[in-house]
Amino acid sequence: MSLNATRILWINPLGFPDYDQPMGDYINSIKSPEVAVEVISFKSDAQMNNLEYRTFEALIVGDTVRVTRYAAKEGFDAVVIGCFYDPALEDSREISGEAIVVAPCQASIQVAANLANNFSIIIGQEKWRAQMTERVKHYGYGPRLASMRSIDVAAHDLQKDCGLTETRIINAGRKAMEEDRAEALILGCTCTFGLAEKVQKELGIPVIDPIIAAYKAAEHLAGLKKQFGWVPSRKWGSAAPSEDQITEFGLFREAPPIGNKLNFDVRGFI
Amino acid sequence: MSLNATRILWINPLGFPDYDQPMGDYINSIKSPEVAVEVISFKSDAQMNNLEYRTFEALIVGDTVRVTRYAAKEGFDAVVIGCFYDPALEDSREISGEAIVVAPCQASIQVAANLANNFSIIIGQEKWRAQMTERVKHYGYGPRLASMRSIDVAAHDLQKDCGLTETRIINAGRKAMEEDRAEALILGCTCTFGLAEKVQKELGIPVIDPIIAAYKAAEHLAGLKKQFGWVPSRKWGSAAPSEDQITEFGLFREAPPIGNKLNFDVRGFI
Amino acid sequence: MSLNATRILWINPLGFPDYDQPMGDYINSIKSPEVAVEVISFKSDAQMNNLEYRTFEALIVGDTVRVTRYAAKEGFDAVVIGCFYDPALEDSREISGEAIVVAPCQASIQVAANLANNFSIIIGQEKWRAQMTERVKHYGYGPRLASMRSIDVAAHDLQKDCGLTETRIINAGRKAMEEDRAEALILGCTCTFGLAEKVQKELGIPVIDPIIAAYKAAEHLAGLKKQFGWVPSRKWGSAAPSEDQITEFGLFREAPPIGNKLNFDVRGFI
Amino acid sequence: MSLNATRILWINPLGFPDYDQPMGDYINSIKSPEVAVEVISFKSDAQMNNLEYRTFEALIVGDTVRVTRYAAKEGFDAVVIGCFYDPALEDSREISGEAIVVAPCQASIQVAANLANNFSIIIGQEKWRAQMTERVKHYGYGPRLASMRSIDVAAHDLQKDCGLTETRIINAGRKAMEEDRAEALILGCTCTFGLAEKVQKELGIPVIDPIIAAYKAAEHLAGLKKQFGWVPSRKWGSAAPSEDQITEFGLFREAPPIGNKLNFDVRGFI
Amino acid sequence: MSLNATRILWINPLGFPDYDQPMGDYINSIKSPEVAVEVISFKSDAQMNNLEYRTFEALIVGDTVRVTRYAAKEGFDAVVIGCFYDPALEDSREISGEAIVVAPCQASIQVAANLANNFSIIIGQEKWRAQMTERVKHYGYGPRLASMRSIDVAAHDLQKDCGLTETRIINAGRKAMEEDRAEALILGCTCTFGLAEKVQKELGIPVIDPIIAAYKAAEHLAGLKKQFGWVPSRKWGSAAPSEDQITEFGLFREAPPIGNKLNFDVRGFI
Amino acid sequence: MSLNATRILWINPLGFPDYDQPMGDYINSIKSPEVAVEVISFKSDAQMNNLEYRTFEALIVGDTVRVTRYAAKEGFDAVVIGCFYDPALEDSREISGEAIVVAPCQASIQVAANLANNFSIIIGQEKWRAQMTERVKHYGYGPRLASMRSIDVAAHDLQKDCGLTETRIINAGRKAMEEDRAEALILGCTCTFGLAEKVQKELGIPVIDPIIAAYKAAEHLAGLKKQFGWVPSRKWGSAAPSEDQITEFGLFREAPPIGNKLNFDVRGFI
Repeated sequence: MSLNATRILWINPLGFPDYDQPMGDYINSIKSPEVAVEVISFKSDAQMNNLEYRTFEALIVGDTVRVTRYAAKEGFDAVVIGCFYDPALEDSREISGEAIVVAPCQASIQVAANLANNFSIIIGQEKWRAQMTERVKHYGYGPRLASMRSIDVAAHDLQKDCGLTETRIINAGRKAMEEDRAEALILGCTCTFGLAEKVQKELGIPVIDPIIAAYKAAEHLAGLKKQFGWVPSRKWGSAAPSEDQITEFGLFREAPPIGNKLNFDVRGFI
Repeated sequence: MSLNATRILWINPLGFPDYDQPMGDYINSIKSPEVAVEVISFKSDAQMNNLEYRTFEALIVGDTVRVTRYAAKEGFDAVVIGCFYDPALEDSREISGEAIVVAPCQASIQVAANLANNFSIIIGQEKWRAQMTERVKHYGYGPRLASMRSIDVAAHDLQKDCGLTETRIINAGRKAMEEDRAEALILGCTCTFGLAEKVQKELGIPVIDPIIAAYKAAEHLAGLKKQFGWVPSRKWGSAAPSEDQITEFGLFREAPPIGNKLNFDVRGFI
Repeated sequence: MSLNATRILWINPLGFPDYDQPMGDYINSIKSPEVAVEVISFKSDAQMNNLEYRTFEALIVGDTVRVTRYAAKEGFDAVVIGCFYDPALEDSREISGEAIVVAPCQASIQVAANLANNFSIIIGQEKWRAQMTERVKHYGYGPRLASMRSIDVAAHDLQKDCGLTETRIINAGRKAMEEDRAEALILGCTCTFGLAEKVQKELGIPVIDPIIAAYKAAEHLAGLKKQFGWVPSRKWGSAAPSEDQITEFGLFREAPPIGNKLNFDVRGFI
Repeated sequence: MSLNATRILWINPLGFPDYDQPMGDYINSIKSPEVAVEVISFKSDAQMNNLEYRTFEALIVGDTVRVTRYAAKEGFDAVVIGCFYDPALEDSREISGEAIVVAPCQASIQVAANLANNFSIIIGQEKWRAQMTERVKHYGYGPRLASMRSIDVAAHDLQKDCGLTETRIINAGRKAMEEDRAEALILGCTCTFGLAEKVQKELGIPVIDPIIAAYKAAEHLAGLKKQFGWVPSRKWGSAAPSEDQITEFGLFREAPPIGNKLNFDVRGFI
Repeated sequence: MSLNATRILWINPLGFPDYDQPMGDYINSIKSPEVAVEVISFKSDAQMNNLEYRTFEALIVGDTVRVTRYAAKEGFDAVVIGCFYDPALEDSREISGEAIVVAPCQASIQVAANLANNFSIIIGQEKWRAQMTERVKHYGYGPRLASMRSIDVAAHDLQKDCGLTETRIINAGRKAMEEDRAEALILGCTCTFGLAEKVQKELGIPVIDPIIAAYKAAEHLAGLKKQFGWVPSRKWGSAAPSEDQITEFGLFREAPPIGNKLNFDVRGFI
Repeated sequence: MSLNATRILWINPLGFPDYDQPMGDYINSIKSPEVAVEVISFKSDAQMNNLEYRTFEALIVGDTVRVTRYAAKEGFDAVVIGCFYDPALEDSREISGEAIVVAPCQASIQVAANLANNFSIIIGQEKWRAQMTERVKHYGYGPRLASMRSIDVAAHDLQKDCGLTETRIINAGRKAMEEDRAEALILGCTCTFGLAEKVQKELGIPVIDPIIAAYKAAEHLAGLKKQFGWVPSRKWGSAAPSEDQITEFGLFREAPPIGNKLNFDVRGFI
């Protein structure tokens, strides 16, 4: 790897490695040549294949922070938490040192806000609605959320029959567009990777793939960091715990709970 | 313990047992005779004596959920998460089965909303301001928050010199009252237990002790549950993961991470 | 009556006594044994059997405040204004002395906020929608109101054919649940007493009876008052008029406008 | 009085007639020649000379509605409730028949919104702050309220030493302008009549006299009503009780509680 | 023209004169006799017959400000920008000198807020929805907007077949009333002049014609200005550029871009 | 220029060319090598050197849209409107065809939202406060705006004595940080280019230079467009006028009002 390359860590926030390779390949296919990407999932007894429930998320919050700490120490420029609930985002941002932490929901919305007056989010199941709506409002975009539309497919089934999933997204997206007056769509799960393109062609409005939005935001913000020194604030609410406290409390002494790791290096340097 | 007694679990969400006895004694001194209370802290390598940082909270989110699961299985009527950030509250509410989950910030505000038009929250350090303000807004009470006033004392030092802490709370509270027009005060940390009374006498406005507010809300809501069947919703955003998924993913197989446990039984039944 | 018993005044804010006995019996059936309850309605020329119109409420605002003044003088610990519009709540809170004043809408919402992410309110007629929505927003819970659903039954007809009313509530409630994604229901009129249980069984989500919510909140807050001195604030916007002004203006010289009075004493002391 | 003249009823919502003459003369000096104005106060045992407390307002809500009913029956085109708290405004609007009901706070804000980006309200005492802020937000102008500034003078003392009151308003207004960046001022009490002019000259920004704003809004809206038939809505939340119910409940059988009455007729017809 | 007459400038913000005569006649038919009205449209290469698109509005912003400057210099008391998008309203208010600037959307809402709890706006095409909703929220009335309902007629076709347009407005208005619970309607385009009356008769709720609302607001506010000196604030955000800067930058040296001009003088003075 | 290079148009929205060279050089110093940038200002009689007043902005809205139309036709990938008020942003977005339109205020906030919980904006003069606050709220970030702090320097004087300006920004920024608890700063004028770095070093929190934020957002979004087809929505509120209408109304027939033009080409291809 080039000494000075931008380095991005993509966290699949699960103790379940099966998404690592396809998501990694997908990211590899869209990344800038001069960026090195590491894709990881956790080493954990909890073998969840989705984060549809708050319970599941709760069980990976600690590990997400532990791995972000690792990213900070290892000098990554940016970290992406690869789940559309943006779990542990604020927690990770606190301990990320000079690494920027990015997540798909916030990143997707920020893109959409440059392309349209409002947007709808396509969700897999009704379960997601309450929590994601809360997130969107948290970021300040409540008034721009035209609707949530569910396609009634569980997160881990989204890639099972891509044609079927696309059809459902197109149908739900068309309703969002025609009935809720959405001007753009966001796919509300990172497991939809690769499905946006056809939907966009079909409906004729921007359809945001959250993996692309989040990953490219990480590249963008990592670039700003390297070029202009825009690292995360460490003041007031953004202050991190002191190293003394971390030592005193015995935190982060163990190796980071990384179970699986894939590297997608700077092109030509692998 | 009487067969039919109301049972409340108080979680000190730390892998650090030192607060268990004094907080337990305090709760014991205010509880209804016919309620049985269990006070626990976690078994954990992370030996934090405070949760002032998001990082620290992130490290106890999983254990809080695990112990709430234990409470659900053991038939507790209510669970209190004993930290004013209300960490893991929504997560725990999802997995609590028929147990009501309560936390100090929400509980304190709900009391204050019956006593005054607005309130200020006394915080230990400026660090807390951003996150707690977010919480207050999340509950819908942003327009009723007159101010946050910091006393510049760390959470774990609040009980070190109670006289000094009281003096600082009185000074900050008076400013909140006189300059920010607060009509009531809330002490923004469970480590302030026992300090509200003197402040209230001095300032002449209601001063809410968050341990009392949270614990008594738990008794109140547990009573409603037992008498009227008002258990947590399990619909839509409140749906819990299925037992099948829990089994499939290998969750909650280990014993709950309880490090220390104190019992305060129904009076006369110990 | 025991000297030290908690005393609660339930106001049926009407110059119409017919609800007193059934509501009183209902409250008596759910109250704590050690609490003494007085149920009153007004002595008034205005013989309204409902408060569906603002006009009707306006005509009982003065009497509600007069009777709250009586409660303050008589040493009641809490007062409940028994109408879901929460009429004269802020006014009564100002003049209640050390008595806590509680009302069904606010109390019901505070319970629901502990059980679910959102709620719908079942209303009798469309007329109620605008004013109740305003109230819910006033308390800060606008973003948690999934919907209002009307059953097209006037307040004073709700108990005429309870089976029919229940059926309509179940139908409206199911729509609220299925179409508006409500996770809990609140019955938006105190005249629905006794009807929540069957609805809850049928729909499987929490259904809040506003009489229970309000009465039990009064017991809860009265308990906090007696145990911890949490009386209403009398600062700034919560300040009460001085006794001098009250005398100067000739207020409250007449006997309180109580037309009908029922007592439900501490169990074993009647 | 000309048969077709516009007729406006100004209610001094007090059982205290002393303000009637000076306020009536003031209104007379600013009214359009072709409008007939009736100024009334209540016949009541409650002899309050101010409405600074919610308790006092509560005691006049019923009478305000009763007199609005009289205005509806007598064919007034508009009614003004002459207190800056806008007491009983929504209640009166329901029962006003075809009469427009106007109040000073809403009317003043609507003028200010045409003259400046924001405004401050000068209040007599801190007591007023919470309730008036709530009102301003209720009307949707919360984001345009730069500040409330108190001059520490009771409502009924505002006209005692007009020079002193003016000085205090100028001082408070200057602070609102310089420190809170207010671009306009509203005087937050109808007892300030006649004081705005000098303040406006001194500070050089618009200073709204609430009597003028409210009275002239009444003329304006009464004109629209007569010319274009824009009477109050009677649909949904604006529906009025039926005459049948009014009769059944025995409402409005007594003469309207008018204690004092002054007439300022169409010029040339007195 | 009488020396002291109130003078109002109505701007048809288009480089297209065809609306001038019918709108002028309409205004003439509703104006007070003692007011002189000038109706103008622009001299411009851009010959748009509507402002449905932001692009079109952008092309008239400069001219609107230039003509407002002319109004300020010529001593007009008020200016109305005759398009329901209220284009260039804030810009024109800055440069209007002592003239009040009024626009139909804000003026219509202010009337509706005195007549009903909420309102719907009838729009010509879906295109208008996003921008007008934004405007309504900007004025603080977002919570009172029951709905937007489109009749699928372009702005410049609204007067083509008035019977058809009325029918469509009645149908859309009825849906707004019955389904969205609107208590009042606002017609969302100045090209609807003359159509409100029949709709109002049919639906039985207030239907606001935006030309009337805006024009009469101008008369009302111009009257307040003349009688009480309530001119626009020139402080902080309302400050106007200095005449020195205007000269230095060479602004407003050309004649105002007025293409067509109609005068409707004080009655009896023509 | 390489055939496939990303092309960005930077508009200095003034009929005044003096900023073109220094801003162009600044942008050239930070741009990606493979991007071609064109910097333009307008050909106009209005020779303003700043846009501090709405009046001035109004006079450039039409030209901004005309030049955006040129950018759409010429195949630019993105357009930046180089003023922190983000003037004509929504208008330009409508007519931009497939070009992304970006502006400094929105772009700066989107960066800050990834680095800190809140931010303050440093403004040149108090005049800017009202309008910019409105903008920040429009984008949804009102709750994250800690404060506006003015340094009392006119826009066109910001680069006169850079040392002095820096000192004032540091002083104002320190107050924002210490008194308003800002965790990040945004410089609220594009004329501050080059000044952020020293302020950031001095205060130790992120200080966003709006030129960098806007320009780099343009690169980022132009990249997304080229790689993923994320062009602006043309649905509902984002629909553009038809070419037929544009022709019929005679729009955009003249050459675009470009007065000065600088090209900064792809490195190595000049």
